Amino acid sequence: MNFNYYIPTRILFGPGKLEELSKENLPGKKALIVISSGKSMKENGYLDRLIKILQSKQIEYALFDKILPNPIKTHVMEGAQLARKEGCDFVIGLGGGSSIDSAKSIAVMATNPGDYWDYVSGGTGKGMPLQNPPLPIVAITTTAGTGTEADPWTVITKEDTNEKIGFGNYMTFPVLSVVDPELMLSVPEKLTAYQGFDALFHSTEGYIASIATPMSDIYALKSIELISKYLPECVKNGNNLEARTQLALANTLSGFVESISSCTSEHSLEHALSAHHPELPHGAGLIMLSEAYYTFFASKVPERFVDMAKAMGVDVDSLPEDERPFSFVKALIELQEACGVRDLKMSDYGIKKEEIPVLAENARTTMGGLFELDRYKLSLEETIEILNNAYK
Amino acid sequence: MNFNYYIPTRILFGPGKLEELSKENLPGKKALIVISSGKSMKENGYLDRLIKILQSKQIEYALFDKILPNPIKTHVMEGAQLARKEGCDFVIGLGGGSSIDSAKSIAVMATNPGDYWDYVSGGTGKGMPLQNPPLPIVAITTTAGTGTEADPWTVITKEDTNEKIGFGNYMTFPVLSVVDPELMLSVPEKLTAYQGFDALFHSTEGYIASIATPMSDIYALKSIELISKYLPECVKNGNNLEARTQLALANTLSGFVESISSCTSEHSLEHALSAHHPELPHGAGLIMLSEAYYTFFASKVPERFVDMAKAMGVDVDSLPEDERPFSFVKALIELQEACGVRDLKMSDYGIKKEEIPVLAENARTTMGGLFELDRYKLSLEETIEILNNAYK
Repeated sequence: MNFNYYIPTRILFGPGKLEELSKENLPGKKALIVISSGKSMKENGYLDRLIKILQSKQIEYALFDKILPNPIKTHVMEGAQLARKEGCDFVIGLGGGSSIDSAKSIAVMATNPGDYWDYVSGGTGKGMPLQNPPLPIVAITTTAGTGTEADPWTVITKEDTNEKIGFGNYMTFPVLSVVDPELMLSVPEKLTAYQGFDALFHSTEGYIASIATPMSDIYALKSIELISKYLPECVKNGNNLEARTQLALANTLSGFVESISSCTSEHSLEHALSAHHPELPHGAGLIMLSEAYYTFFASKVPERFVDMAKAMGVDVDSLPEDERPFSFVKALIELQEACGVRDLKMSDYGIKKEEIPVLAENARTTMGGLFELDRYKLSLEETIEILNNAYK
Repeated sequence: MNFNYYIPTRILFGPGKLEELSKENLPGKKALIVISSGKSMKENGYLDRLIKILQSKQIEYALFDKILPNPIKTHVMEGAQLARKEGCDFVIGLGGGSSIDSAKSIAVMATNPGDYWDYVSGGTGKGMPLQNPPLPIVAITTTAGTGTEADPWTVITKEDTNEKIGFGNYMTFPVLSVVDPELMLSVPEKLTAYQGFDALFHSTEGYIASIATPMSDIYALKSIELISKYLPECVKNGNNLEARTQLALANTLSGFVESISSCTSEHSLEHALSAHHPELPHGAGLIMLSEAYYTFFASKVPERFVDMAKAMGVDVDSLPEDERPFSFVKALIELQEACGVRDLKMSDYGIKKEEIPVLAENARTTMGGLFELDRYKLSLEETIEILNNAYK
C-alpha cells in the first residue's frame, strides 16, 4: 500500500451552490468564459446567471462559445488567442465535460508558446514540459459525467490526425469547482444515461486499473453504488433533484478516482471510436464496448469484479464462486436496460466492421499508456477480439 | 446535501515514503524543524534521516526541540521567534500531533505580529484575522492519532489560563505530508492505543456532528472500520507493518473527516481535562469519557449509531431495534478491552470529582463552538452529568 494523494480543488457541492460563487474569492479580474456552441447554456439562463455573478464582483469577462461535443484542438488554440488578446487572467468552463476540458486546455495555451500538441504525450504529441503555469481554472459543471471538475484531465481531439488524447498534471486541477445539481435537471434523457455511464466507467476502470489504491477504491466503490442506485431514476425522471444530487456526488467521486487512479484501455478504445466518428457521444461509445470489455477482464481480475458486483447490490455470496465475477457484467447489462441504452450499436453511427483493426491500432498508439495500466496486458489480437465482440 | 470540500494537502503515503521526500519540491530554502523534547526522534534516527534528505537538496535548517506532549503557547512564540531569527522560510513538523500542531502554530506566528492568542477564537482568544499567510508547513507524522497531517487544525494550550483550544483555516493545511508507517513501528503499546482511539473519536464525532456530509461520512465509516479491525493487532504486535499501515490510513482518513466535518463536544470535554491536568494524554482522556458520552448520545441520534456499529462489524440486523444504537457502545467497550485500556481512570491522573463543574464550565467557554455542532444541545447540567458518569 503505497501512493501519492493530491486533489487540491475547492468544491462547492449541492443544489443552489452556483449562487455561492458570488461569495467566493475568484482567481482573477477578467475571465474567459468557455461554453459549447449549443444553445443550452444561454436558453437555460446559466450563462446570464454566471455573468451577473461576475458583474456583482466587478469581474470582467470575454466569451468563447464554440466548443463541440467532442472538443477540438483548433478551438483550444482559438480560445487561448482570445484569452491573450482580451487580457483574461483566469478561465471559467461552464457546461459539460467538453467545455470544462476545453477551458483547461485553453488555460494551458493562454500562457504557453507554440502548439497544444507540443505538450501532449502519446500519438504525434511532442510531450514537451509546460514552460509556464496555466491560467487558474474555474469549473461549473452542468452534467454528471466526466468528473473533470474534480480531476486534472482534459481530452481534446486533433482533427487532422483523428487523435483524441488526454492531458493534465498537478497544475490543471480546477482551483474552484461548482457542482450544482439544479443545473443538471435540464439534461435530456439520453445524455443523462450516456454521461452517467461515463462516470460509472471512470470508477470501474479506476477500480480494475493496476495503480488503484485503497483511497481510489473507497471512492470508486461508493461511486459505483450510487450510480447503480440513482442513474435509472435520473434517466426516467430528470426533475428528481435528490436523485440528480446523488448522481452528481457519484460523478465527483469518479473524478477523484481519475485523479489518483486511472482509466484503463476501455477509454483508449472509445477515444479511437469517437475520434474517427466525432458524432458518437463518448458515453455511448463506452456503453457499446462495455459488455465485451468487462466480460474479457472478469476472468483476469476476478476479485475486483466481485467487489464491483457487491457495490452494484448483487448478492454475490448466494452465487457459485465461478459465476461471481461475471455477475458484475450481468448487473451492468441490467443497468443498461433500466436506462434504455442496451440497444446502442456501432453500426448506427456508421462504424464499419472493417475499420476495427485501424481503430485498435489507433487506440494503442494514441493512448497506449492506459493499456500499460491494465492488470492484464492486451495483445493487438485481443484488442481486436474485444472490438469484434462489441460490434453490432 | 450541501457542502464545501477542500483538502489541498499533497500526501505521500506508505512504508518507505520518507525517503521520497528527497525527490519532492520542498517549499523553501531553510526549514525550521520542530520536534518534541523527548528522545525518540533522535534515538530512532528519524531526525538524522530528515537532515540528510534536506542536505541532499541543499536546504538549510534550524532545530526547535522543546515541544511537550500537550504543546504550549510559550513554545509556539519561542519557535516563531527562532524561525524569524534564523530566516526560515518553511516549517517541518516531525513527530506526533504535538510537534506537527506546534509547527503549524509556529508557521502562523513566524509571519504575524503580536501574540498567538490574538488569533485564537474561543476562551480569552481575540479571534483576530491573520494579517499574513503562514509559512508553508510540511508534516512528517510518526504516529497514527491526530490526523493533523491531513487537516488544518492545531491544538495549543495557554498555560496560565488552562485553555486548550483548536485553531486553523484554509492556510494551515500542510502543503506536503509524509505518512510512513515504518516510522510508527517504534510507538509503544500504550501510546499506540491512546492515539488509535483519538483517531477513532475524530471519525465517530465527525460522523455524529451536525455538519457531517456524505463525503465526511465515507471517510468516517471507513476509518472506524479499519481502526476496529487493526488497532488491537497494532497494540499487541507493534511490528506488524501491514496492521500499522492500515491504522495509518485510518488516521489519515480521520484527518479528512476533521477537515470537512468537525469534532463534537467530546473533544471540548477532553481538552478541559488535559488543560487542567497536562500529564493526561489526550487519547487517554477521550477513552475515559467515551462510554458515558456515547451512551448519552446513542438515544439522541440512533441512526448514526447504527451505522457506526455496522462499521465496527456488529451484526446489527440480528438485534432488537432498540438495542441497535447501543451496540456501538458495546463494540467500543470491547475494542477498549482488546487494546488493554478499559481500566483508565480519571482519579489515577489526579482529577477530583469536585473539579467536574469547573471542567464542564471550562469546556463550554473555551471550546463552546463544538457544542454547537452536536445534534443535541447539551445543557450545563447534562455536561456535568456526562462527566460524572465517566468519573472513576
